[in-house]
Amino acid sequence: MSNKEENALRYRRAQSVTKAEEITEKEKKARNSQLDKPIHKPRDSLFSWSSEFTNFTGLVNWGFLLLTIGGVRLCLENFLKYGIRVNPFEWIIVVTGYHEGQSHQYPSVILLIFSVVPAVFALLVEKAIARDVISSKMGVSVQIFNIISTVSLPVIVLNFKGQQFSFVGITTVCLIYLVLFLKLWSYVQTNHWCRQGMKAKQFKNKLRRQSLSAPNWNELVNAEQEQSEDDIDLSPGLVKYPHNLNLKDLFYFLLAPTLCYELNFPRTTRIRKRFLIKRLLEVVFGINLVLALFQQWMIPSVKNAVDPFSELDMIKMTERLLKLAVPNHLIWLCLFYLSFHSFLNLMGELLHFADRNFYNDWWNATNIAVFWNTWNMPVHVWAVRHVYKPITEMGYSRALASIVVFFISAFFHEYLVSVPLQMFRIWAFLGMMVQPPLSIISKVVEVKVGSRWGNIIVWSSLILGQPLAIMMYYHDYALEHFTPK
Amino acid sequence: MSNKEENALRYRRAQSVTKAEEITEKEKKARNSQLDKPIHKPRDSLFSWSSEFTNFTGLVNWGFLLLTIGGVRLCLENFLKYGIRVNPFEWIIVVTGYHEGQSHQYPSVILLIFSVVPAVFALLVEKAIARDVISSKMGVSVQIFNIISTVSLPVIVLNFKGQQFSFVGITTVCLIYLVLFLKLWSYVQTNHWCRQGMKAKQFKNKLRRQSLSAPNWNELVNAEQEQSEDDIDLSPGLVKYPHNLNLKDLFYFLLAPTLCYELNFPRTTRIRKRFLIKRLLEVVFGINLVLALFQQWMIPSVKNAVDPFSELDMIKMTERLLKLAVPNHLIWLCLFYLSFHSFLNLMGELLHFADRNFYNDWWNATNIAVFWNTWNMPVHVWAVRHVYKPITEMGYSRALASIVVFFISAFFHEYLVSVPLQMFRIWAFLGMMVQPPLSIISKVVEVKVGSRWGNIIVWSSLILGQPLAIMMYYHDYALEHFTPK
Repeated sequence: MSNKEENALRYRRAQSVTKAEEITEKEKKARNSQLDKPIHKPRDSLFSWSSEFTNFTGLVNWGFLLLTIGGVRLCLENFLKYGIRVNPFEWIIVVTGYHEGQSHQYPSVILLIFSVVPAVFALLVEKAIARDVISSKMGVSVQIFNIISTVSLPVIVLNFKGQQFSFVGITTVCLIYLVLFLKLWSYVQTNHWCRQGMKAKQFKNKLRRQSLSAPNWNELVNAEQEQSEDDIDLSPGLVKYPHNLNLKDLFYFLLAPTLCYELNFPRTTRIRKRFLIKRLLEVVFGINLVLALFQQWMIPSVKNAVDPFSELDMIKMTERLLKLAVPNHLIWLCLFYLSFHSFLNLMGELLHFADRNFYNDWWNATNIAVFWNTWNMPVHVWAVRHVYKPITEMGYSRALASIVVFFISAFFHEYLVSVPLQMFRIWAFLGMMVQPPLSIISKVVEVKVGSRWGNIIVWSSLILGQPLAIMMYYHDYALEHFTPK
Repeated sequence: MSNKEENALRYRRAQSVTKAEEITEKEKKARNSQLDKPIHKPRDSLFSWSSEFTNFTGLVNWGFLLLTIGGVRLCLENFLKYGIRVNPFEWIIVVTGYHEGQSHQYPSVILLIFSVVPAVFALLVEKAIARDVISSKMGVSVQIFNIISTVSLPVIVLNFKGQQFSFVGITTVCLIYLVLFLKLWSYVQTNHWCRQGMKAKQFKNKLRRQSLSAPNWNELVNAEQEQSEDDIDLSPGLVKYPHNLNLKDLFYFLLAPTLCYELNFPRTTRIRKRFLIKRLLEVVFGINLVLALFQQWMIPSVKNAVDPFSELDMIKMTERLLKLAVPNHLIWLCLFYLSFHSFLNLMGELLHFADRNFYNDWWNATNIAVFWNTWNMPVHVWAVRHVYKPITEMGYSRALASIVVFFISAFFHEYLVSVPLQMFRIWAFLGMMVQPPLSIISKVVEVKVGSRWGNIIVWSSLILGQPLAIMMYYHDYALEHFTPK
């Protein structure tokens, strides 16, 4: 204990009624022998600072109980106000875009099926490079072109066939093409590393053979050791470049719950049936829960919130924002669990994929940087392996690598929002740009005030940041589509 | 660790993808020497039961943040819906009952001043008994009559002057007279104990003197030892019966923050000025906060809630009840802190009263019996000292003593509600009658399910029980006063 703390403790004790009143044993005995059955004795109240009482664990239960009561009441109020709005048929219409009464070409479905083409094309180019049909440099250029056109394809198609897309359909297409972009990037780069590694090894072997032509026994022993180390690489069961370049391997990677390509993924030995059934049920019920929350709670709240935003009435805006924040946040939490736990684990179990590190304990994150590094592990691991590390290995600074990762992330956040809405605003991009200063603030708070408050900042930015961005988009969208210009 | 737990752990580990995939050191080395920079390894997701991950401390912050956001939103919604309804002048009218435009006799104020009379009367009777002017038996009968008429007085006056009371005025009167009732009961009973004790001592001394007349040296030594033990009682500074029977002592007890009379209360040596100022500010601001919450939040909610209750619409009733539960509970919490911490500590500090044990940590109570024994210490201590113990000491069972304490408590809860409302319903009494079965249920839950759930039951009954009773009274009150019969 430091001197300061000791002094504080001594002062606290001096302030207490208990310690101020120093009773001798004799006085105590005299008091207790009185005939009036005395029961009072000097004591501080528990809330008094000098009582040194700190057990308030019951208040945690109190908090969660109030939260539950508030939730049940909101639910009842919602049903009383809006009736039951959950309608699964409406969703079928929304997803397929069937209701528009126009020629039914289902461009989303066609685009999803077409996504196989750039993937197979990437495999063919890799095979051509591996067999020296084209040069490595030429091949990599073709691959980069292929990858960039993959991610651009939805934007182009949308420009021509925009009317026939449903919102959910185009969002799915954008998400799938973005995942494809990241996976192909990893596929091409990893194969490139393998080629470079093999070239380096061949060069080393050549050097070794040259040195063997002038016999020197010491070097010969060293060389044999190196040779034996190389032999471990040839351990049976591990696939080696270029034997990985086949359709089966490619499609396993495309379906596997990871964005980083590897020649030998860790595998499980069996499919746990109970685990599989649980995840499957979670996916089925989870999707319906999210859709119900959307129809019943989110859409009425957003609709009610547009007026205050166009009138720029600050108090009403804040009230609407806070009202929107709760269902939005709950939907986000459900979606997080659904995507990152239920769905990715389901895919992993089906594919015998053993690395289930899809998320880390971001709910304990003590600053915003930690949150971004823990909530979406597939993207985080991809960014570190394929952007951050290559840049730092080229000799650039870590700061530059971070900035590049950050801008790529910001760009794709905007891509996932602007393309489906067909509105090129910068709200999502701005939302991402706010993250670095917020990150610094939360780090300062964590160090100066305490990690609890850092965690509270992380949660606040999550709960309040998203609905703000959604309101901005919905406001602009409503202005564009529903009001006469 | 028990066998069962060990088996569960073993099973859990066997279910994990990590442990199922047993990698030898050699395989690991082989994998890591690959050219594709592998990063995947067998791992469970954190939400998977087999991951053994349990750190969810961040979720506590999440809960309190959502609670805060919900609170701020409710506050804004309230202001938008009802405007600012806080009006301190209205309160002056409500308290004094001035606005009725009738002859202003202020019966509440008169009754409050009159409360000195039964107190002084009790002192006079005690003095008469002490000086043997009247017999002890006769004196106690007079005192019992005095105490019962004290608590009946507000009811009688209300019957004749009911129109001139304000609701707050009569509530205050009832509360003060109830406190006076409890204090005088303690005063009379404690003095009675002292008299009985002195009589017993005189009887012992008489016996001793008789035995001394036939000298026996052993007994003489024993008697002297007893004498010296008695001398400790005569330690200077401690007041002894009947020297306590004076006005100063009586008024100190009436003002002191306790219901149990004692001849020598523990005293503090000084008044802590900072402590005093803090408590004073808390009282001033706290009263205004409670009044504001009442006008702005509670009254509109209760008014809106009456219709569903008269229509007996279950869903609407539940929604209203939950809506009412939150402001009611917050007001109760504020009132608790205000009365039991701020006000009683203020009185204690002013009067050098050292025993500040006005409440215990009821927020951690794991069953309802614990809650009733900890939340209101002055009444609890009074009930144990003046009802429970005397009954058990008379040889009756503890169960009987508990039941008597419980009925007295139920009766005075009803007294505090029915008299001011001038409506003799039994909702408050019924509310108290539900406590013993609830207490048994919560004890069973605590033992079978865990103390956390016992605590949750305590909080639930607090948060939901009170508004239910309030709704019942307000419903009956509104039916009687506002609808044509």
